[in-house]
Amino acid sequence: MTSLRSWFNIPRGSHFSLANVPFGIISTASSKTPRVAVAIGDHALDLEVFAANNGFSGLSMIQPHQAVFSQPSLNAFAALGRPIHSVVRKYIQSVFTESTELPDVLKDNESLQKQALIPLQDVKKHLPFKIGDYTDFFAGMNHAYNCGVIFRGPTNALQPNYKHLPVGYHGRASSVVPSGTPIRRPNGQILLNPTAEKKEPTFSPCKKLDMELELGAFICGSNEQGTPIPIDKAADNIFGVVLMNDWSARDIQAWEYVPLGPFNAKNFGTTISTWVVLADALEPFKVKGLENDGSVLPYLKESDEKSVFDINLQVDVKSTIACSGHNTTISKVNARNLLWSFPQMLAHHTITGCPFQPGDLLGSGTISGDSPAEYGSFIEQSQNGKEPIKLSGGEMRTFLEDGDEITIRGVCGHDEEALVGFGECVGRIEPALELKFD
Amino acid sequence: MTSLRSWFNIPRGSHFSLANVPFGIISTASSKTPRVAVAIGDHALDLEVFAANNGFSGLSMIQPHQAVFSQPSLNAFAALGRPIHSVVRKYIQSVFTESTELPDVLKDNESLQKQALIPLQDVKKHLPFKIGDYTDFFAGMNHAYNCGVIFRGPTNALQPNYKHLPVGYHGRASSVVPSGTPIRRPNGQILLNPTAEKKEPTFSPCKKLDMELELGAFICGSNEQGTPIPIDKAADNIFGVVLMNDWSARDIQAWEYVPLGPFNAKNFGTTISTWVVLADALEPFKVKGLENDGSVLPYLKESDEKSVFDINLQVDVKSTIACSGHNTTISKVNARNLLWSFPQMLAHHTITGCPFQPGDLLGSGTISGDSPAEYGSFIEQSQNGKEPIKLSGGEMRTFLEDGDEITIRGVCGHDEEALVGFGECVGRIEPALELKFD
Repeated sequence: MTSLRSWFNIPRGSHFSLANVPFGIISTASSKTPRVAVAIGDHALDLEVFAANNGFSGLSMIQPHQAVFSQPSLNAFAALGRPIHSVVRKYIQSVFTESTELPDVLKDNESLQKQALIPLQDVKKHLPFKIGDYTDFFAGMNHAYNCGVIFRGPTNALQPNYKHLPVGYHGRASSVVPSGTPIRRPNGQILLNPTAEKKEPTFSPCKKLDMELELGAFICGSNEQGTPIPIDKAADNIFGVVLMNDWSARDIQAWEYVPLGPFNAKNFGTTISTWVVLADALEPFKVKGLENDGSVLPYLKESDEKSVFDINLQVDVKSTIACSGHNTTISKVNARNLLWSFPQMLAHHTITGCPFQPGDLLGSGTISGDSPAEYGSFIEQSQNGKEPIKLSGGEMRTFLEDGDEITIRGVCGHDEEALVGFGECVGRIEPALELKFD
Repeated sequence: MTSLRSWFNIPRGSHFSLANVPFGIISTASSKTPRVAVAIGDHALDLEVFAANNGFSGLSMIQPHQAVFSQPSLNAFAALGRPIHSVVRKYIQSVFTESTELPDVLKDNESLQKQALIPLQDVKKHLPFKIGDYTDFFAGMNHAYNCGVIFRGPTNALQPNYKHLPVGYHGRASSVVPSGTPIRRPNGQILLNPTAEKKEPTFSPCKKLDMELELGAFICGSNEQGTPIPIDKAADNIFGVVLMNDWSARDIQAWEYVPLGPFNAKNFGTTISTWVVLADALEPFKVKGLENDGSVLPYLKESDEKSVFDINLQVDVKSTIACSGHNTTISKVNARNLLWSFPQMLAHHTITGCPFQPGDLLGSGTISGDSPAEYGSFIEQSQNGKEPIKLSGGEMRTFLEDGDEITIRGVCGHDEEALVGFGECVGRIEPALELKFD
């Protein structure tokens, strides 16, 4: 696609080019009530202020709905539906293009520019949605395979159901936090000697704290309980995508997960990036995912095979305690490494009639490529602790240490003036609470 | 305890004696906005109307908070905390007692009686809470053992972790519905021949649709992410208890659940009773649960061993299609058959720092006793379909048929003038959707 040139200064290489226009929830020191904004280059455009000052004068159809931009979450905007998101995004693009036909709205309106365009560094970013329910899938087949090899060997690495349905579990919506929120190392039950005959757990801070490189998709549609969302309608129900770090306590998980799945190993925190990239902005980057050589039932068959995204993802680790800030990129992997797409996940999730609401969140599962430099978790990179990872500055890691900061980045495209990026998804590990019992 | 005699006609044997005073959300044909009420005998006391007409004139401390009674959920009332719930319940009891010291409030105020006391048959009952997150536990040890025997034999029936922690999974909050809501039989993937070498699933309506007899506990407290709720504070965070039917698709579950636990097998619907019995009302019925002969870590040790409830539970099945309304009681069991209490579940759930909000819901897991007549699910009663259950009227059941109606009842106590009951938790099975694929 050709880049959209703007009268506004959008730095080359910005994740938030005019080809993007991602949505988020912001507040500022002078105006603490969270409201809707879009990111444009190094700035946020405050849509509450923009709307209140006739910013949408050229888009009459949105005017009855302008209250959605004063909400503290994107739920109400999302509920308007993808056709409206599309129109609003295109309108904002048209306002910012060099040759805008609406110069009075913002280009020649310095007063509104001063009020509505806020440098990103002055903006506090909040959770973009009030999340009703959060589900985490396991669609990164390389990750599923790698973990299967670690625990069961290569012969039965993937379970028999894996290629027939998007395996997933219900997560803890209350534990999803915006990028930048510290993550406290959880305490819990772990089995220090898993091979001992007598299984006696120890209470301890997690010793195998991990991260997982994922994408998250926010839902904008809804369905009545008892009525599925068919596969050919599923994409219409996806508002947009964020980066996600599904922090995982591997030792707690190993002990607790039989037979009902991961629980406390996951519910202490999941971090998401704060700017939601609209499905429309990702449309040019749709690609085919991993080949499924199993038989896919009709309710999961997509007419459009290009249903995952060509997003270049990267995971960086910064050790902030021992090593004073050296940064190491430990993984670079493309988001096309998924066996199941978000529309397939939604069609499967609702085939029972499970009801969805705008603001519900789906996680993709950990995205890993074929080689260790493309693995999206420490358990894969270190082979469950057996092969330490070397960080810049000389430190070694098998799992996360206190003070480690993980930054996930993701970006679509290569034209430095038309990137569709996600910004960052950052979290730093705080030491576990020291708990005393009588 | 001695019964509280009332000037108001509370029928003998009512679940809603003055010893109870459960809270719920109601609307009526003439006033469709949902609001808070309590159940007293055969009537609901509309607390919005009661409050607006000086019903709380004798309780000045609640007056600044009266807006909570006009809310469409109990979340705001619950958030006031257990000391306030206690005071409000006692005040309502004092207003209704024969020798009330506040006769002007209601006893001698016929006008307010007419406005605020509504026959239950004229009341529509709604979901009592806006549920943020819902977690279902597995604390019914007899059920866990029985299912373990069915799938793995008696030697390894309970997993090694079972007696060390309350095993649970995150459920789907959006799928929780109030008593009376029809439940549609889900479609999904099932393995018709599980022992075949090649595992090829079939798309089908669930053929092993089951119910699960459980209790649910609503949370009234909250904790910051990263900060656990200690075991000795956990009970203060429990608002009250409801009956719960955790509908389960056993064949979908068997195929999907490895390795991340039950998912679509559970998210099509969970039914709860609509009147929430306050923790205070259950206080006289606290008993010791099942003996735990494992070693319990200090963070799960309770100072009060009486932490589960002496509630007489009953499950009835009514076949409404073939057999035109015969009713069969298939199970009678006491709710003390739990290995873990709600405070233990909450302490375990938050030990990682997982955050809770008022309105979050915990399920106990299926409650079964020692003998088949005390089993709380069809999979146990029919030995996974091998031994059909005979219903009144002659029909046989292994799992639920379309049109079957399940009614769960629960009541504490034997004094017919002082019962603390839960009313009913009812759901009827509707046929699966017939889905067509090109």
